[in-house]
Amino acid sequence: MRKTYILTPGPTPLPDFVRLALARPILHHRTSEFQEILARAEEGLKYIFQTEQPVFVLAGSGTSAMECAVANLVSPGDEVIVVEGGKFGERWREIAESYGAKVYSLEVEWGRAVRPEEIEKALAEHPSAKAVFITHCETSTGVDTDVEAIARITREKDCLLVVDAISSMGVSPLKMDEWGVDVVVSGSQKGLMLPPGLAFISLSERAWEWVERSTSPRYYLDLRKYRKVIEKPDTPYTPAVSLVVALAEVVDYYRSQGIENLWARYGKLAEATRKAFRDMGLELFSKDPSNGVTAVKSPKGIDSGKLVKTLRQEYRVSVAGGQAKLKGKIFRVAHMGWIDELDLIVGINCVRAVLESMGCSTANPDLAKLYLQA
Amino acid sequence: MRKTYILTPGPTPLPDFVRLALARPILHHRTSEFQEILARAEEGLKYIFQTEQPVFVLAGSGTSAMECAVANLVSPGDEVIVVEGGKFGERWREIAESYGAKVYSLEVEWGRAVRPEEIEKALAEHPSAKAVFITHCETSTGVDTDVEAIARITREKDCLLVVDAISSMGVSPLKMDEWGVDVVVSGSQKGLMLPPGLAFISLSERAWEWVERSTSPRYYLDLRKYRKVIEKPDTPYTPAVSLVVALAEVVDYYRSQGIENLWARYGKLAEATRKAFRDMGLELFSKDPSNGVTAVKSPKGIDSGKLVKTLRQEYRVSVAGGQAKLKGKIFRVAHMGWIDELDLIVGINCVRAVLESMGCSTANPDLAKLYLQA
Repeated sequence: MRKTYILTPGPTPLPDFVRLALARPILHHRTSEFQEILARAEEGLKYIFQTEQPVFVLAGSGTSAMECAVANLVSPGDEVIVVEGGKFGERWREIAESYGAKVYSLEVEWGRAVRPEEIEKALAEHPSAKAVFITHCETSTGVDTDVEAIARITREKDCLLVVDAISSMGVSPLKMDEWGVDVVVSGSQKGLMLPPGLAFISLSERAWEWVERSTSPRYYLDLRKYRKVIEKPDTPYTPAVSLVVALAEVVDYYRSQGIENLWARYGKLAEATRKAFRDMGLELFSKDPSNGVTAVKSPKGIDSGKLVKTLRQEYRVSVAGGQAKLKGKIFRVAHMGWIDELDLIVGINCVRAVLESMGCSTANPDLAKLYLQA
Repeated sequence: MRKTYILTPGPTPLPDFVRLALARPILHHRTSEFQEILARAEEGLKYIFQTEQPVFVLAGSGTSAMECAVANLVSPGDEVIVVEGGKFGERWREIAESYGAKVYSLEVEWGRAVRPEEIEKALAEHPSAKAVFITHCETSTGVDTDVEAIARITREKDCLLVVDAISSMGVSPLKMDEWGVDVVVSGSQKGLMLPPGLAFISLSERAWEWVERSTSPRYYLDLRKYRKVIEKPDTPYTPAVSLVVALAEVVDYYRSQGIENLWARYGKLAEATRKAFRDMGLELFSKDPSNGVTAVKSPKGIDSGKLVKTLRQEYRVSVAGGQAKLKGKIFRVAHMGWIDELDLIVGINCVRAVLESMGCSTANPDLAKLYLQA
């Protein structure tokens, strides 16, 4: 039994107040006691999503909220544009294809964000596209996309903007209403510092018009059923009670800190993390780096998969390796949720120790100084 | 802050070993540590389902597993038979209709189980039906269905038997392989004494043939994706880690007790509960009573909704009221999962106290004696 450090971009470590909330006796979900908690959680999510629209809480992984967006908005034959610059952009395409959409894939080199001009061009080429699906933080590459700039384009057109904010929510600035984003989906196990098992989705008013028109089959993910009971508040199917109880604590934490402060804080952590790896002499992978996760290129001759494995086995520090075509080539360190400066000092030092043990010598970054500035 | 008693047919109370498991630090899901836990949970589920087939663990409510069965087996235009004798039978119909199935509804009076002869007749009338959807324990009416007898019919035909065992799993006898049941779905928050948020599904070999043929859109619930990675063991989407960790403890508990012993135990609790209410002078609602939940008719002039509310507010005892057309007419007391004799003594006495306070006098059942016999 040794201490462990979780520095992965989901699941992220659980604060004690979350763990204690999870351990409470169960509540029945159709009681006023639980309804008050659900209402508090949903109101808090509106604050975190920066929207006046209801935010629906699903029992499911983040992917269930992505599918929820597609199933409720897209009918077979509909044209949609999907931005693919990593594993989670690919997922949008796969889901849209599963539902019989005509998908135009805007392929972006892994490691950079799509440019607003590329979205404009894609929309000009596909004027019938009814929605653009993007990924706010592409966790697989450590890239943050400029959602605000893209929303400025889509909100002027008869075209929805659907944003996967699973790993960016509460970490990178996102102002759903102010920016004019139509659909935002997220999950519990990233910035929101909960275990996986809850997914969230919120829709703009104009997106609801599409929900009414979608002919795709859906039941568990049918948002019309969720909307019918949200005012009570209630959920059409049994909610994941314990996770919702813990969620209510997390949204209180977000309110107490102020979301703009948290965005700024994660921004500083990200900056300090990037500086540390650069000072070590390593190269960063992402050209448009994310507030939530830093992707670092593995030094020449070093298999990042082996680095990650050794780090976990020898030091009990979990970071993520590369996925798909980046397997073995990058490793990813998260700075979201309950991960703080001190966790990162541990993690970065241990990465260095493993690299040394693998015969790769690096410079010694001044982490104490760096984090005092962060 | 007062003690509470949960005697509802889901969620059911959490044992301390579950609450402590939920409060553990989070694990990353792609580590050998978590994989061992997932393997233990899945092996244990095979024991509880009484099958050699893999049991898949979904992050979702029980309804997600029901939809999973439909989406993976049913293509638009397929003929299916649905047994409707309560709210959860209706749900099968609604989901099948959502997926464009041609649904033949075998309506059964609420409060009794479908007879095997009725299934035979329905199959004779609809020889092209490819599946029969039934509810093992119809939670809304407190009825257990004779799955074994029905499976004896379907297994001889080119017709699948799909069983909603959400509230019966681990409570009422169910031997998936031995009886020849094709598909069994369940959930975490009933007999398995966990919070809601996990759903389970297992398929017979012949059911897999239908999965390959289904043209219904699906992604999150696509069982082909789950099957591809179960041997690792892994899940295609992030699992609800904390709930799976607690599930591994529950399956160990089931193994330590022996499932036949637990079935027998819940059977005795159910019998004792029925006797207690009968001794009070009340009438039972179900003609084919369930091992997991007892439905009791509200005495003349008593609104069961008010009874349930008073019980919860004044005594902190939660039982369930009637749903849909049974609203106000019955109340339901669960004896599944972590609910034991002593909880039931409390609950039944408090029901009696509330009835007295509502001006309805009842006989005093000898609960101490009764439970010593149970």
